[in-house]
Amino acid sequence: MDEFSLIKRYFELPSAESARVNAQLIQGIGDDCAVLAVPNNQDLVFSLDTLVEGVHFPVDASAADIAWRVLGASVSDLAAMGATPNNFTLALTLPELSESWLQSFSENLAQAAKQYQLTLAGGDTTKGPLTLSVQVQGFVDKGTALLRSGAQVGDVICVTGSLGDSRAGLSLLGNAVSSPVHNYLLDRFYRPVPRVSTGQLIKPYASSCIDISDGLLADLAHILNRSGKGAKIDSSLLPLSAPLQQIAADKALDWALSGGEDFELCFTLSAKNWRLLQARLAESGHCVAISNIGVICDEPGLQLYRNDQWHHVAAKGFKHFL
Amino acid sequence: MDEFSLIKRYFELPSAESARVNAQLIQGIGDDCAVLAVPNNQDLVFSLDTLVEGVHFPVDASAADIAWRVLGASVSDLAAMGATPNNFTLALTLPELSESWLQSFSENLAQAAKQYQLTLAGGDTTKGPLTLSVQVQGFVDKGTALLRSGAQVGDVICVTGSLGDSRAGLSLLGNAVSSPVHNYLLDRFYRPVPRVSTGQLIKPYASSCIDISDGLLADLAHILNRSGKGAKIDSSLLPLSAPLQQIAADKALDWALSGGEDFELCFTLSAKNWRLLQARLAESGHCVAISNIGVICDEPGLQLYRNDQWHHVAAKGFKHFL
Repeated sequence: MDEFSLIKRYFELPSAESARVNAQLIQGIGDDCAVLAVPNNQDLVFSLDTLVEGVHFPVDASAADIAWRVLGASVSDLAAMGATPNNFTLALTLPELSESWLQSFSENLAQAAKQYQLTLAGGDTTKGPLTLSVQVQGFVDKGTALLRSGAQVGDVICVTGSLGDSRAGLSLLGNAVSSPVHNYLLDRFYRPVPRVSTGQLIKPYASSCIDISDGLLADLAHILNRSGKGAKIDSSLLPLSAPLQQIAADKALDWALSGGEDFELCFTLSAKNWRLLQARLAESGHCVAISNIGVICDEPGLQLYRNDQWHHVAAKGFKHFL
Repeated sequence: MDEFSLIKRYFELPSAESARVNAQLIQGIGDDCAVLAVPNNQDLVFSLDTLVEGVHFPVDASAADIAWRVLGASVSDLAAMGATPNNFTLALTLPELSESWLQSFSENLAQAAKQYQLTLAGGDTTKGPLTLSVQVQGFVDKGTALLRSGAQVGDVICVTGSLGDSRAGLSLLGNAVSSPVHNYLLDRFYRPVPRVSTGQLIKPYASSCIDISDGLLADLAHILNRSGKGAKIDSSLLPLSAPLQQIAADKALDWALSGGEDFELCFTLSAKNWRLLQARLAESGHCVAISNIGVICDEPGLQLYRNDQWHHVAAKGFKHFL
């Protein structure tokens, strides 16, 4: 099997099917480039992410888990812009041609793509150490992309879902115990659910947004740097799941602050918009929890209320090459 | 140095500079996603390519050569669509943080990007075996992207430049001799020049086009498959450079047919348009040679005139995993 039959067999949708699921994608897999018709009133929003075996996932990770993880983590960047996913490209580097691996990977990738409403538009398959790069592309109404740079003094700081679960999942890798608590945390590590609909819902209200890939403190620091502001966070307000508290015990708070790869959203909005958003959430029956954890202030840096006092904290998080 | 300071130090243009060089790129490096305003009358054209150390370039390749090669090879896909380059993203996986490597790589990447009129819009840096994935993005007037699928019976088959040089360069890697002939061929391997202006010039005349990355026979076969046609090629018409003939001797023709990675264009056009294109080339003073090497026919498959007779040939070329 060569590269072309591999792509045809595992990744290429019949062109009629591709045209049906994505009217904007004029040319998908099968030419030198893909061709996309971006609607006139929309901007294109895109992000490229890489996962390396042994760095971002363990060597014994299943093909299915890798497929869900690479797409979930990538789509999370679109969610943070309030964008609507449209398509993705995949650079897949494989050490060997394992048909069972490819079968499972491509099936799960197709399921994840369907769930996130993305079409595979193209890519490259090469031989080498197992590495996946995915570029996701989506649309927002012109000029409305939700950036990191808009936080204002007095803005409320919010996060979606719960924090630290992915780090707890990481601590359980290779652990043979299977229980609902373990499975929940491992799923949070391997199969992060990008907050696409939440990103779209908060976009009209939010002043800035980021997805939490490096840990709350590190990612909030990006908002503060880009916005030229500081922040105060109350650690007692951080959303911690019951499974996290059960597994992590006294490390739960640190993992929520700096664990990384939760792929939740952290965003800011004015006090007035926070009230409007709460009303909108109640009315829409949106099922993702949103917690108010602090406030944007003028004083630079990040202050954390913990053990009955304020602490200046560094933006610790997961950093490659450290 | 962490990932963020690495990107800031080596890859990020000041935002005023970025806005000056690319008015379409509303948000470049520094947010969860980049944001691009695609002009109303244009389609977006994009391609993702990966280079792996030890597979696509030798382990002793210089950072400078790697930078030129990854961008040249990627932009070649835009050239094959007749597109105008606009921006690119880079997924850079590095085994270690070498500041001298990064300095040389980023300087040469910036020079190549300037030459090909591309802005670096974003990407990802990770730790792992040296691997580079680049997604290039460009524009074409709506509905005018030059595809592989339009070849018609009777169309003339043309190629740009000369073929087989890159394969000859590959044969010289690790060879200590330095001469103008060696340097020319090594440059053709390491620093392919994408045929962007040629692609734009031929677009109004051509019925199909592909860039030669896997070798003429393999890539022409893609045009034939997508177009549902066959082809006849006269081997005596293949453009062979003097350095190739000097180094390759009796292998010159095979390398021109199947060597791969020349990043020249192979395209088809009607006999009438071939006359019009020749007039256009003469009038414009376009400096890239274009050679007529054969004709599209009804009979399926690829026939090659060589040693005074016609041969049916297989679409041999460079294929990963073979």
